Amino acid sequence: MEKLKGSLIIGQSGGPTATINASVLGCVEAALRSDSVTKVYGAIHGIEGVLNDRLCDLTREDPAELARIRNTPSAVLGSCRYKLADFLTDDTDCRRILDVFKKYDVRYFFYNGGNDSMDTCSKISAFLDRNGYACRVMGIPKTIDNDLALTDHCPGYGSAAKYVATTCMEVSLDAKVYGRGSVTVLEIMGRNAGWLTAASALARGQGLGPDLIYLPEVPFDIADFVEDVGRAYERQRDVVVAVSEGIRDKNDAYISSYFSDTSRDRDAFGHVQMGGLAVSLANFAHTKIKTKARRGIEFSLLQRCAAHIASSTDIEESYMAGRAAFEAAEAGESDKMVAFARPGGPVYRCETTLVDLADVANAEKKLPREWINAAGNGLSQAFVDYALPLIQGETALEWAGGLPRFARPERLLTRDV
Amino acid sequence: MEKLKGSLIIGQSGGPTATINASVLGCVEAALRSDSVTKVYGAIHGIEGVLNDRLCDLTREDPAELARIRNTPSAVLGSCRYKLADFLTDDTDCRRILDVFKKYDVRYFFYNGGNDSMDTCSKISAFLDRNGYACRVMGIPKTIDNDLALTDHCPGYGSAAKYVATTCMEVSLDAKVYGRGSVTVLEIMGRNAGWLTAASALARGQGLGPDLIYLPEVPFDIADFVEDVGRAYERQRDVVVAVSEGIRDKNDAYISSYFSDTSRDRDAFGHVQMGGLAVSLANFAHTKIKTKARRGIEFSLLQRCAAHIASSTDIEESYMAGRAAFEAAEAGESDKMVAFARPGGPVYRCETTLVDLADVANAEKKLPREWINAAGNGLSQAFVDYALPLIQGETALEWAGGLPRFARPERLLTRDV
Repeated sequence: MEKLKGSLIIGQSGGPTATINASVLGCVEAALRSDSVTKVYGAIHGIEGVLNDRLCDLTREDPAELARIRNTPSAVLGSCRYKLADFLTDDTDCRRILDVFKKYDVRYFFYNGGNDSMDTCSKISAFLDRNGYACRVMGIPKTIDNDLALTDHCPGYGSAAKYVATTCMEVSLDAKVYGRGSVTVLEIMGRNAGWLTAASALARGQGLGPDLIYLPEVPFDIADFVEDVGRAYERQRDVVVAVSEGIRDKNDAYISSYFSDTSRDRDAFGHVQMGGLAVSLANFAHTKIKTKARRGIEFSLLQRCAAHIASSTDIEESYMAGRAAFEAAEAGESDKMVAFARPGGPVYRCETTLVDLADVANAEKKLPREWINAAGNGLSQAFVDYALPLIQGETALEWAGGLPRFARPERLLTRDV
Repeated sequence: MEKLKGSLIIGQSGGPTATINASVLGCVEAALRSDSVTKVYGAIHGIEGVLNDRLCDLTREDPAELARIRNTPSAVLGSCRYKLADFLTDDTDCRRILDVFKKYDVRYFFYNGGNDSMDTCSKISAFLDRNGYACRVMGIPKTIDNDLALTDHCPGYGSAAKYVATTCMEVSLDAKVYGRGSVTVLEIMGRNAGWLTAASALARGQGLGPDLIYLPEVPFDIADFVEDVGRAYERQRDVVVAVSEGIRDKNDAYISSYFSDTSRDRDAFGHVQMGGLAVSLANFAHTKIKTKARRGIEFSLLQRCAAHIASSTDIEESYMAGRAAFEAAEAGESDKMVAFARPGGPVYRCETTLVDLADVANAEKKLPREWINAAGNGLSQAFVDYALPLIQGETALEWAGGLPRFARPERLLTRDV
């Protein structure tokens, strides 16, 4: 494969995670060491930064401050939810991107995101190829949803899972403190896949956490839910339930839609905006079972930005994904996403592989039905065996004056080109 | 003072904290070492455990498992919200307590709670005294609300404040990631006093955290709120606001009551609005300012049980409060609550003192108005100087398999007498 020399752009897209910046660092540190790369640019707010020619020059960044992004949550370069037009219908976006790439002699492009971002990445790769512009295009996965296809798991999931399991332990201790009869419903992110909600089951290994867990993979029946909660209430008085925001009934209607107007907000991708489900379900159970107390808790943004309790396994792997993306691109690969493979054996290991961008773009991986119990309200040991290795190890976060010393993203963003 | 020998009961009451068990441990470990104490009992679910003769024998507890309660959140002995009858009107409760004390030869009674619990404690002390029953009665403070009178600060506050400040840093990084215009409202506990919400201001020292902070100490004007948010929105696009759950208008009406009325429970489009104060205020600001996005986040139970991010200063001081209570009682003190004093000087120090139970029972300490800025939407440096020492140091939590290894309270509770 020919040696390609030029500048590099990296961008971040979609909902942030606690470790998405570790992936950027892995890619950027490898690039800064390489003689194939002349300049390392960050695209401010993802592909919008390319379209608007808003880049920052990471080559000039203080290495010590840059290194702090490893443990800094949220996307330090800024994120976006921009749906790139299909160039066969409208090539305005892709032409603009090509112009900017030519302006900066960009030969390496990395996009750090979920399945929508891999779609963006795939379109750019195809357009550049069709126009004979030599540029290596690579996707670096991230998502707390853990729903990307063709990878054992996703960077960002382990840390969100560790937060969810730990918080479920703490909340279940608190929620049961009066012993007088209560139902507490915890609402966890996941529109279509229940991976993150399932992580609440890891707390069961410590004898704590939710008594009942409902995922989008199993049709939700509100009468069964009331019966399940009622049985647990009879037995133990205080009941903790975890639900995915995206639980649906057998007709594919969101349970959240039972409690609100059907015309809900949608984001740029047409995804329905969720919220309010936990309180509604707790109230519903209370009305039917006459529990003494009820409470709904939405983990909200906290579950995806809690860098203070990130999994060190996840941080390491997120960094490794970024570095592997650069190394593969430098070696001649393009139009690929870095994926994780888990070799068999008694000890957990994680290796990087490459998969075609087109195969992951817009695809979704759900939790296998056989990892959910027959009643559809709990997880099996197979899931625990899968997920537990991903939350191992505590973060080596730097503290200053009692608070995390995160990287100051505004310092990066002000170093405009 | 005569030497008093007999058994000891300790109970916990009110909303739990991340360090309430450290106080129990401080008291119990001192008692187990003392020859004044024959048996150490835990009252299960506070004073209800005494009334119902439900005690556990902590003398027989495995010291290693007991030591783990230092870092275990929620009240390991179980809590209650029982309002003890005034014995001048109805002495049933107090007589029953005296009977149980006589049955177990209880000569030391410790109650670990907030201002309601100090009222309970004070009544018991007065009744025993009136009946000539020799028993040393001591209150051990705890509350994330930090609103107890006659003490510099309260055990449990520092840890909740550390959680709030850290989470505000993380959330503000996340909430501003798209840079497209949003308002995020964070709802923090505190019905009458704004101490905990004020802790969100500590994040400002790291250049992060809420742009605007509203406390119950200053009457809330919703028009001013919209104006404040609008100005910040114009300036920076993404705005993060922290509010105490108990903010009230100049007529003392809760702002949350503005939105609970069914006629106001719908937005401009007639959609039913879900959720509490945070979501309602975010929606209200959105309707007026036409922000692109809005979001409400309630910290809920998470802020009072997040032992994984407890302040080690708070843990040490909570333990010290429990030990000081026992040592004072053994030395002959009674009818007192342990309080904290902060001697002047350049380096923070904390000493225990004793105050009369009757003086703290049902009293509330609010944030001084001069620690809040003139506009009533932010904190002064004086508050930061007060609060910052309380969140210093990270917990030495024991981890097992990627999750906290908390004490198993059921093991304590099953060792019934």
